Amino acid sequence: MRLAIIGFGAVGQGLARALAETDSGFVVTAVLDSRSASINPDGLDLREVLARKKETGLCGSLGSGVPDLLSSGAFDILVEVSPTNAESGEPALSTIRSALAMGKHVVTSNKGPIACAYHDLKALADQKGVMIGYEATVAGAVPIVSGLRQGLAGNTVRSLHGILNGTCNYILTRMRDEGLTYPQALQEARDLGYAEADPTSDVKGIDAAIKLVILANTLLGMDVVLSDVAITGIDSITLEALSLAEAEGATIRLIGEILPGKNLMRVSPRLIPLDHPLVVGGTLNAISVCCDLAGDVTFIGKGAGPYPTASAILADLNFIRDAYGRGA
Amino acid sequence: MRLAIIGFGAVGQGLARALAETDSGFVVTAVLDSRSASINPDGLDLREVLARKKETGLCGSLGSGVPDLLSSGAFDILVEVSPTNAESGEPALSTIRSALAMGKHVVTSNKGPIACAYHDLKALADQKGVMIGYEATVAGAVPIVSGLRQGLAGNTVRSLHGILNGTCNYILTRMRDEGLTYPQALQEARDLGYAEADPTSDVKGIDAAIKLVILANTLLGMDVVLSDVAITGIDSITLEALSLAEAEGATIRLIGEILPGKNLMRVSPRLIPLDHPLVVGGTLNAISVCCDLAGDVTFIGKGAGPYPTASAILADLNFIRDAYGRGA
Repeated sequence: MRLAIIGFGAVGQGLARALAETDSGFVVTAVLDSRSASINPDGLDLREVLARKKETGLCGSLGSGVPDLLSSGAFDILVEVSPTNAESGEPALSTIRSALAMGKHVVTSNKGPIACAYHDLKALADQKGVMIGYEATVAGAVPIVSGLRQGLAGNTVRSLHGILNGTCNYILTRMRDEGLTYPQALQEARDLGYAEADPTSDVKGIDAAIKLVILANTLLGMDVVLSDVAITGIDSITLEALSLAEAEGATIRLIGEILPGKNLMRVSPRLIPLDHPLVVGGTLNAISVCCDLAGDVTFIGKGAGPYPTASAILADLNFIRDAYGRGA
Repeated sequence: MRLAIIGFGAVGQGLARALAETDSGFVVTAVLDSRSASINPDGLDLREVLARKKETGLCGSLGSGVPDLLSSGAFDILVEVSPTNAESGEPALSTIRSALAMGKHVVTSNKGPIACAYHDLKALADQKGVMIGYEATVAGAVPIVSGLRQGLAGNTVRSLHGILNGTCNYILTRMRDEGLTYPQALQEARDLGYAEADPTSDVKGIDAAIKLVILANTLLGMDVVLSDVAITGIDSITLEALSLAEAEGATIRLIGEILPGKNLMRVSPRLIPLDHPLVVGGTLNAISVCCDLAGDVTFIGKGAGPYPTASAILADLNFIRDAYGRGA
């Protein structure tokens, strides 16, 4: 099947490297970054595109863009991995809508469109008989979407608790393990590239809340928006609070919680026993679901990074190929 | 789709209750235990069959059995959940072969046939265009099979480490947490029903090794048998050894390990840092896979019990229905 990749930052390049290194059976016919594009209906040489991007900062010719790609139609799956806009989902949302309307499958790591408009996009995809894959939007390489949809199919989820933001988990881990203050740990996270220059979305719990909205709407039968989530960040956590937790055999982590039956969604720092499976270190993500048949099932893994995100994208791509691509 | 359930012990009854309690869309046309059978091509009343089993110990009429079921042909999926025979896989293996040869799908929680003959069974299933589901044979409700096959599709697994026997994990947890000796902890596990009267297969590591064989042959591209696994049990673990581990911030757990690249498989008590995701408590199971793209991903959950096993069986049943059952 033919892929068009929109967005050629760390994730797009990681995916291109993963595709170039393996005999994946996918042909990439288009790569677009914010300023340029390479389009070849017969398939691009990904190593060449990667080398060009590294050398020049551009993946292809200036001036070509999404409209050219869409009008070419030379792809079966649109892979949307451009930077996210969590408020409107744009411009990715419009691009995804156009691709679905053309009867193209879509796979994305872009949280905005899925958090803002999943039910609309899913209805459009169903109408056109295509799929929309979004495993990469939540918890990176952790296969929580396929885990709930396939591995735990037949279960009713009673509650979901997750560590969904690696930056916050890194900060809280370092505060506990090394006795760093919040500003010290935040600075360290910035120095290591785990936190952005403006860390508001992470440390205020907004990023985790967006992921809760995605999980709730796509897997737990809910219909919610970001403002439905009660959000408290980690920026007021003190070493004293962590010491008090430690004295009880617990620690503090930023937990996203969904109770579908009570329509409750919240992100907040929570006391959690040190031997609980959700207590993971560093930038790891973890999600525990409490199911009626399976009981508690926990998934742990890398929540970010080019290759972990590529892993999730490839899972969606393989699923689509298995479901639709035989003989294509 | 129509199900025939062979085996009506704890797992078979758990599955029947789960199917009776939900609108699963599956019709059960046959239930067999070791002495009796209920067969009705129009569908059985599962509540009635469960009540009869509880009252009389039989699920149906004496004298009817597998040959009658197979000759009736009145099912689409054979659900084989009879007690396992890990050495020959029989009699389940022959029953499964017959069903596949008839072009019927098979879903099983029975380790023996999968450990003994997966490659043969898979070839037969492929030839007949049907599926064989075995999620329930390894780690109960933990969706490791679908996790590797779907959620981490596109990855190469470099190593796998797992806690695959809940009885051993319970014993080692109680030795560490409560200072019980091995015989004391084993007796407690027996009293609670976690260990069988003859616990050899569990405590000697054989059960965990059988699960490694299944994972290796079905998901990691290997072709191995039980005697390829180097096995050491937990029956020589002392409190002194656990104290020494504790002093290093570690503990001892029975770990199953596969290194596909080195063709290495072993089950043995291993020192493991207390903050490692694999250190789970009580009867839980846990599996960590190290993947080329995703990095380390860990799955934790209940490794046994009627409902957790039913969860895994239902995942396979739903997968088959989605792949083959549209309109059936």
